[in-house]
Amino acid sequence: MIGVGTKGLVVQNIERADSAIVEALGACGVATVHEAQGRKGLLASHMRPIQQGTRLAASAITISAPPGDNWMLHVAIEQCQAGDILVLAPTSPCEDGYFGDLIATSAQARGVKGLIIDAGVRDTMDLRAMGFPVWSKAVFAQGTVKETLGSVNVPIVCANALVNPGDIIVADDDGVCVVRREEAAEVLEKAQAREANEESIRQRLAAGELGLDIYNMRPRLAEKGLKYV
Amino acid sequence: MIGVGTKGLVVQNIERADSAIVEALGACGVATVHEAQGRKGLLASHMRPIQQGTRLAASAITISAPPGDNWMLHVAIEQCQAGDILVLAPTSPCEDGYFGDLIATSAQARGVKGLIIDAGVRDTMDLRAMGFPVWSKAVFAQGTVKETLGSVNVPIVCANALVNPGDIIVADDDGVCVVRREEAAEVLEKAQAREANEESIRQRLAAGELGLDIYNMRPRLAEKGLKYV
Amino acid sequence: MIGVGTKGLVVQNIERADSAIVEALGACGVATVHEAQGRKGLLASHMRPIQQGTRLAASAITISAPPGDNWMLHVAIEQCQAGDILVLAPTSPCEDGYFGDLIATSAQARGVKGLIIDAGVRDTMDLRAMGFPVWSKAVFAQGTVKETLGSVNVPIVCANALVNPGDIIVADDDGVCVVRREEAAEVLEKAQAREANEESIRQRLAAGELGLDIYNMRPRLAEKGLKYV
Amino acid sequence: MIGVGTKGLVVQNIERADSAIVEALGACGVATVHEAQGRKGLLASHMRPIQQGTRLAASAITISAPPGDNWMLHVAIEQCQAGDILVLAPTSPCEDGYFGDLIATSAQARGVKGLIIDAGVRDTMDLRAMGFPVWSKAVFAQGTVKETLGSVNVPIVCANALVNPGDIIVADDDGVCVVRREEAAEVLEKAQAREANEESIRQRLAAGELGLDIYNMRPRLAEKGLKYV
Amino acid sequence: MIGVGTKGLVVQNIERADSAIVEALGACGVATVHEAQGRKGLLASHMRPIQQGTRLAASAITISAPPGDNWMLHVAIEQCQAGDILVLAPTSPCEDGYFGDLIATSAQARGVKGLIIDAGVRDTMDLRAMGFPVWSKAVFAQGTVKETLGSVNVPIVCANALVNPGDIIVADDDGVCVVRREEAAEVLEKAQAREANEESIRQRLAAGELGLDIYNMRPRLAEKGLKYV
Amino acid sequence: MIGVGTKGLVVQNIERADSAIVEALGACGVATVHEAQGRKGLLASHMRPIQQGTRLAASAITISAPPGDNWMLHVAIEQCQAGDILVLAPTSPCEDGYFGDLIATSAQARGVKGLIIDAGVRDTMDLRAMGFPVWSKAVFAQGTVKETLGSVNVPIVCANALVNPGDIIVADDDGVCVVRREEAAEVLEKAQAREANEESIRQRLAAGELGLDIYNMRPRLAEKGLKYV
Repeated sequence: MIGVGTKGLVVQNIERADSAIVEALGACGVATVHEAQGRKGLLASHMRPIQQGTRLAASAITISAPPGDNWMLHVAIEQCQAGDILVLAPTSPCEDGYFGDLIATSAQARGVKGLIIDAGVRDTMDLRAMGFPVWSKAVFAQGTVKETLGSVNVPIVCANALVNPGDIIVADDDGVCVVRREEAAEVLEKAQAREANEESIRQRLAAGELGLDIYNMRPRLAEKGLKYV
Repeated sequence: MIGVGTKGLVVQNIERADSAIVEALGACGVATVHEAQGRKGLLASHMRPIQQGTRLAASAITISAPPGDNWMLHVAIEQCQAGDILVLAPTSPCEDGYFGDLIATSAQARGVKGLIIDAGVRDTMDLRAMGFPVWSKAVFAQGTVKETLGSVNVPIVCANALVNPGDIIVADDDGVCVVRREEAAEVLEKAQAREANEESIRQRLAAGELGLDIYNMRPRLAEKGLKYV
Repeated sequence: MIGVGTKGLVVQNIERADSAIVEALGACGVATVHEAQGRKGLLASHMRPIQQGTRLAASAITISAPPGDNWMLHVAIEQCQAGDILVLAPTSPCEDGYFGDLIATSAQARGVKGLIIDAGVRDTMDLRAMGFPVWSKAVFAQGTVKETLGSVNVPIVCANALVNPGDIIVADDDGVCVVRREEAAEVLEKAQAREANEESIRQRLAAGELGLDIYNMRPRLAEKGLKYV
Repeated sequence: MIGVGTKGLVVQNIERADSAIVEALGACGVATVHEAQGRKGLLASHMRPIQQGTRLAASAITISAPPGDNWMLHVAIEQCQAGDILVLAPTSPCEDGYFGDLIATSAQARGVKGLIIDAGVRDTMDLRAMGFPVWSKAVFAQGTVKETLGSVNVPIVCANALVNPGDIIVADDDGVCVVRREEAAEVLEKAQAREANEESIRQRLAAGELGLDIYNMRPRLAEKGLKYV
Repeated sequence: MIGVGTKGLVVQNIERADSAIVEALGACGVATVHEAQGRKGLLASHMRPIQQGTRLAASAITISAPPGDNWMLHVAIEQCQAGDILVLAPTSPCEDGYFGDLIATSAQARGVKGLIIDAGVRDTMDLRAMGFPVWSKAVFAQGTVKETLGSVNVPIVCANALVNPGDIIVADDDGVCVVRREEAAEVLEKAQAREANEESIRQRLAAGELGLDIYNMRPRLAEKGLKYV
Repeated sequence: MIGVGTKGLVVQNIERADSAIVEALGACGVATVHEAQGRKGLLASHMRPIQQGTRLAASAITISAPPGDNWMLHVAIEQCQAGDILVLAPTSPCEDGYFGDLIATSAQARGVKGLIIDAGVRDTMDLRAMGFPVWSKAVFAQGTVKETLGSVNVPIVCANALVNPGDIIVADDDGVCVVRREEAAEVLEKAQAREANEESIRQRLAAGELGLDIYNMRPRLAEKGLKYV
């Protein structure tokens, strides 16, 4: 993946998870999915949404792009299907505005559900008006060039997390989480079990019961030496 | 406070300021209270609200917690009364999501008014929906463990400010300010006097009078050597 | 500009661009104007709006101010005309709250359209309620003093961009861009041409045509060695 | 401490710890002292030495100073005795160069052992040549003014840690730690015991024994479920 | 790798590259190796050496550790052979001092060549005195606990780069680069070819020839429209 | 300067200050020169030297370069004379390694005295060995491309300071300062006067006199209300 010769590569046929599973993961949200898969897969906390109140899951079309060069975004869009999400990692830190309302129009026309970018985005007023959700490292109008090749649908490290093409991206106001495609069904099952369990706990907490008692924490706290004065 | 042996301590009976004074400080807001007490007590500017338009004051229940360990939050909630606010400082820098919708449900059930945390928070969509306000350093879904003791209701340094249990926290869109419990009444008086004075100045400014004249700045500017060309 | 003796200077008569041109640049927005003038003039991406959905352009009244000292803001307001915008750069990095609702009231009374400040701002709830837009580096209630002279309407470097008095500031949710006064008409022409051109491309993209084809990128990608597998 | 009226205050007579204890703490170094006092008291990791290889301890003369204003440093030096160290916290974030070779000459003449400053320092080539050690947040030549009062020998929060006048500062290449004056003797005893114990462990580790065995970690790792494959 | 169930896993037998190849890669240095493998594999620039003038390569023993918990370091050392290097990534951002002189003594006793850690390190004066090189995100004396399992010799993402156990780490004053084990021989060949080529260019440049001529840049610059005035 | 059409421009004949003045400014150092010219002209504090103990002044050859593209460095070197210094500002934030030992060899062959770069540098071990001084934002081995034009010897904003071609750069361990070419003689005169004055003050301070008395601060401190207790 980091090896010689992967620059300038477009992988056309990637496997995607079952769309029903993807949708269901999206309904669970980032925190629950992250917990369900053993607290792995979060992208760094600098990945922030440009909108509020959007929660989704989608299949990753990955893009490795040079700093300040958005050529590969155009290449990537041709590889997208309805239900995909673009995930771009620059090859070195960059906050240029790789993506704006024109590319978003093109992406939306193909059914792309959003963008995850460890760099900048622009035309954010338009993107919000279009209902095209973005999680990015920066909002910055700086333009980019189209001079140097990158790759599409190769494994990338985006915001300190490994993302393979076809992995499932879950994103909401808390940030972004990646789920391995081959583990999606198992993670969903655990996430939904977790949600069911949380619901009953929520009701007990709302009724005034304490977590100290529900989770039976008092004996272990005492054993560790907690002193009340 | 920084000494040996304070880890694993829960102070159960703390003094709180009069609730009418606390409410009244909340109405004044952060900037006014900060000015009224001699420009002291602000928490660092990285403490940002996850919501917009909320202004409150409440009595601090303080929590010193290890990085990535939210056990003490559960301990702290038992110590809360209606009108309190949780204030958590990790013992070393951390942006994990110590707090989410379940603990918020428990806190809300006890009348806790919000959370100040120099670390991360998650389930932010739910927290906004619940109307549970939070000021935090980060939004991050990263889970925490329950392995190591911290302390509750000991003095802490949170976001570069000293907070004692029972101190009053004032928070709004500008950030967070702490007022010493024993100075609350005096600060309130000065804050309200300030507000009254500001109102008359606001009207003169709105009518087009200049601050240069209202505050009689011209002679001193001239004396300092200001040149108009 | 950096030379000896510029501290304590107020330049009273500055030239401004034609107000119709300024208005028209505001309608184009930051990303388009930035592109139209050859991808120059953006202020650093840490300059963020405290509000959402505001787009404007205005003539810069520049302020060079000491750290933590907002005296020159009062001096500057007297120099403002309707349609101006205040642009403040501290002489060293600072996030103090130089500006709040009282000065905003005074500015608004004179027709000032907003504030660009590479430092902090406070009373943000009030500023939003007043409809007074601000782009700043920080939100922070920390008060300032009035002890040391700075200058008004001298060239400044604000957030890594040179701003001359009378230059046009364009600002929206993407950030802030500066246009030289003497180039405003030419930039506007190019920006409007760009918008017209983009509209037709937007329609083709929305209809499903690919950027790869609209911009005829395929031959050059092949020439650079892009491989599809 | 955060209250009304503390600005413009110089406390002249402070208590200091026994100089033999202070010296002995300095010999232990930051990491050992921090452990010995229960892992408390570290200043934030952005406090970095401008020199390499210096390890010391000294009694804190504290300074609360306005941003960009070093007047109180001159006031503080008069309060210094041989064996003291200056500890300066600005009242809001600042990286100006409060301190250079002239003030260092004055401090050195009074036997001051160094400077801890949560802001900037300048003349660093000279300071290294003089052998005057500094731990700071920034190196920056930006000058300061002498216009606004702060306070000397009041409790301050410096780099996220509370420092009282007369507390002991321990500093080396790892950073800076504060020890409460009244706990100095007890902390020293624990630190020296820790050092003695570490020496024997060091010899066993150097001989090839594993920490897993020396600390008897294997049973607990197995109990937690560690799997070897 | 991000999946369910990898926590608490120690992989004992990993493949390593031929030691002669590893040594030879170390002699080439970070910049050359990075270029030779197609400009991939750099860890983020916040990974800085605590020493100056050390250049090495070694086989990675990877560690995934909870924030503020260094238990897995002890587990990892047992898995080390002479010529290995420890590479630790915390599961969430942390700058605690996971590693000090005692563990370094143990590592050095087993022939471990150094440490790469996307977190903090302490006892840096001792580590430099011992000649044990470290590249880290922070220097910080904050202690850690031993409560929660992580994993050893699983793939990790460290400072935004994927590192597999047995991959080769190249590190010097420029930072850190990872080379895939299976590509090591090919990368070495290219790196050495690059060095040979650079030597002849260096001599021509030292003699005053211009890169513009050596690399024949003038025609292409002219074609792109470069204007000399 | 920010206008349309400046990209792709090389200005060949620039004026330089008298070399004796440049040399003499270098001897004064950054802090003194900065003070002498009215506390203006400092580059941001993130500009750090890769070496220690170097102090110099030189005439600026300015470079505006795209992010991740070092083509213009090769163009710039042809424009250099002995006694010049390269000053590079990327058009958007970037930490790529634009500059390494090969270009340094070329620069050194032409008598270039160093590099100021608001981006990254690599081969730092070699650069130190060569005695080629650099002040940069980052050390990072990331390679760059040669695809997009920038400009040489146009005014640039570098690390928040305006630098014109031919301006004098003064740099030492404290950072970097720019002096306008046309003001160089006047600034030098003031800097040398300042040094002479400082020497006598230094001697009085070294003899134990206090700054409070030398600068006659006591009456004004009393007037401001400083209280000794």
